[in-house]
Amino acid sequence: MGMTMTQKILAAHGGLDKVEAGQLIEADLDLVLGNDVTSPVAIREMEKMNKKGVFDKDKIALVPDHFTPNKDIKSAEHCKCLREFAINNDITNYFEIGEMGIEHALLPEKGLVVAGDVVIGADSHTCTYGALGAFSTGVGSTDMAAGMVTGKAWFKVPSALKFVLTGKPNKWVSGKDIILHIIGMIGVDGALYKSMEFVGDGIASLTMDDRFTIANMAIEAGAKNGIFPVDEKTIAYMKEHSTKEYKIYEADDDAEYEKTYVIDLSTLKSTVAFPHLPENTKTIDEVDNIKIDQVVIGSCTNGRMEDLRAAAKVLEGRKVAKGMRVIVFPATQAIYLQAMEEGLLATFIKAGAVVSTPTCGPCLGGHMGILAAGERAVATTNRNFVGRMGHVESEVYLASPAVAAASAVTGKISAPCELGL
Amino acid sequence: MGMTMTQKILAAHGGLDKVEAGQLIEADLDLVLGNDVTSPVAIREMEKMNKKGVFDKDKIALVPDHFTPNKDIKSAEHCKCLREFAINNDITNYFEIGEMGIEHALLPEKGLVVAGDVVIGADSHTCTYGALGAFSTGVGSTDMAAGMVTGKAWFKVPSALKFVLTGKPNKWVSGKDIILHIIGMIGVDGALYKSMEFVGDGIASLTMDDRFTIANMAIEAGAKNGIFPVDEKTIAYMKEHSTKEYKIYEADDDAEYEKTYVIDLSTLKSTVAFPHLPENTKTIDEVDNIKIDQVVIGSCTNGRMEDLRAAAKVLEGRKVAKGMRVIVFPATQAIYLQAMEEGLLATFIKAGAVVSTPTCGPCLGGHMGILAAGERAVATTNRNFVGRMGHVESEVYLASPAVAAASAVTGKISAPCELGL
Repeated sequence: MGMTMTQKILAAHGGLDKVEAGQLIEADLDLVLGNDVTSPVAIREMEKMNKKGVFDKDKIALVPDHFTPNKDIKSAEHCKCLREFAINNDITNYFEIGEMGIEHALLPEKGLVVAGDVVIGADSHTCTYGALGAFSTGVGSTDMAAGMVTGKAWFKVPSALKFVLTGKPNKWVSGKDIILHIIGMIGVDGALYKSMEFVGDGIASLTMDDRFTIANMAIEAGAKNGIFPVDEKTIAYMKEHSTKEYKIYEADDDAEYEKTYVIDLSTLKSTVAFPHLPENTKTIDEVDNIKIDQVVIGSCTNGRMEDLRAAAKVLEGRKVAKGMRVIVFPATQAIYLQAMEEGLLATFIKAGAVVSTPTCGPCLGGHMGILAAGERAVATTNRNFVGRMGHVESEVYLASPAVAAASAVTGKISAPCELGL
Repeated sequence: MGMTMTQKILAAHGGLDKVEAGQLIEADLDLVLGNDVTSPVAIREMEKMNKKGVFDKDKIALVPDHFTPNKDIKSAEHCKCLREFAINNDITNYFEIGEMGIEHALLPEKGLVVAGDVVIGADSHTCTYGALGAFSTGVGSTDMAAGMVTGKAWFKVPSALKFVLTGKPNKWVSGKDIILHIIGMIGVDGALYKSMEFVGDGIASLTMDDRFTIANMAIEAGAKNGIFPVDEKTIAYMKEHSTKEYKIYEADDDAEYEKTYVIDLSTLKSTVAFPHLPENTKTIDEVDNIKIDQVVIGSCTNGRMEDLRAAAKVLEGRKVAKGMRVIVFPATQAIYLQAMEEGLLATFIKAGAVVSTPTCGPCLGGHMGILAAGERAVATTNRNFVGRMGHVESEVYLASPAVAAASAVTGKISAPCELGL
């Protein structure tokens, strides 16, 4: 049997001609990532190992994005720990607020991840970079520590699920709707420790931002990673953002997949995940009158340019419903500036939204938009577990930026078509 | 003896021909203000009084600005309390995030305070509106509760200090430098329970934003209020922002002042208040090499258009120092939009600052920029008490927007002239 795209990348980084699902291998790392929540733990682990140095100061990325600008004294101390470690180890890719953004939007934008890379990050949504044809996955802080010291990590080679995407999505159907549809279909453990390998002629119609969103939420189906083949759009993206050498891996024709799903994108509708699991999906036409209190547009899942453009198209010339709190989080400083220059931020402000600095903030119930008991939010984020955005009696409905924006206007979960769009 | 401007306003609102310093009077209120920190306490006090109704639904302003967008579950519950009270009492001037800003910038902008008004607010910087020739002062939540029910409040008529401002300030010397100079001169209890009455031909050269800054910090000298005479600039401001009828009060020629200070504005320099009191002032040329970690530009003291314009002039085409965190907080949504349209926000982002939603945030150590132990900030805010912006071992240096911006570039407390400006 041949290898999948994921298996080929892992084999190459393990110095092996061939790997198979279930095999334990040690692979070289192209990048090790940590944030302000997970890095301090990793740094303390390194100290326990009596390891002060890092394997390669250019191959570590430290991004204080979760509780920044510092939420409280504890957050400030965590960020200080990160900053001092970065200075003491001369880490090239430490990003202070003002030059940064949410890690999973920032790293591709800064050109730190390219096709063929193996990346671990002490954050579950590290799988985002699969959009670029890289193998990337979330790890714990201890693995991050070992990775920073050795430049290697152990992996059990994942088996694979194949998702054949065909056709072209209809207006307002985005990457978010595709991945919510998939998670609704296979469940939050539907891809447990497997790689989700996306293929098919439908991919050509997806923007890079769509692909980032889809790969980002692979973890919400339990996957080890999600990965896209490299095409012209991927190469154009890398050429724009990176000077790193990339390598294209392709699955063998006889690669083994545990299961194959064929999805005709043209049949998909806007999709919403109801509390309290991303698998609790309904298409927008199945959603009853659900009043909401807050709308959050942003995060590592949906805070990129195409996301903000879609939301702005819906909000342009409209006003958010009375009493509605709408918080927009561009995912990076560069996106913030670009969105400002395109007039999108002005559209949001005029509609009655607030625009925040890039931060993970409300997505994980961190800060900047926490819910009280009984409150409901529509969010473009990635998780709607119990208490995820605040009180255990609050509710989060996951949706695309277009649906979130339309819901902000009507005050209830809505499709853009309800506004005549 | 005649009456001061403050005394005349109080007499008129107490239905009295004459009042004198020390007299206890009951005065009608034109506006009662509360925020997300103080209003929930006031609302509970009202419930204890068995009072459900408010005296006038148009004369109460409720602004959730301190811990918003909701910092945490507790903040979310406080804001929910405020929101429900506003809905249940049909409060006209409740402002949700997206339509709001920091209370003391918002109320004048929305035209809710004009010359001759008596305003109480459950926030110490309510004295800001003295810039408009109104009497306004901070009260506790219990007084706010009584004010919401009765539309009246008891006051001890303050005695007065007279500040005669003459001449014209030099380049980069702003309202902030003037009030810091005054507090440095008279101390943080130098005006205890007195009114600070600003007069003199030097006022004409001060923008309304300068005057708001000066009146705002009257409380930092212990004053009951600070107040400016109404001139053409005041009237133009009110015409632009309000449809309310205003009334101009002027001090009698024989009004009594405990002390008179004459300040030639042309002799003032950029001034910085060192930790841990606003009275610990030094002029910028007396400041040694003090390295800083964070710069905060914004707040009810210095988050208005002139403040942002001054900061942007300094940051235009420059970069903040490596490792410096710079957080800019436009004081209201309208200011945010205007600053965006003038290109100021783009200047900040390009320089390496982050731009936050309007919130009191870091000023009071609330959120969005808290300091760790040993860290130092230059801030355009109003207080630098021990632990004000975070850890008890952190330090805050109060300064003007121009000095804050210059310090952001150099990494140490600096005057704009150090950048050749």
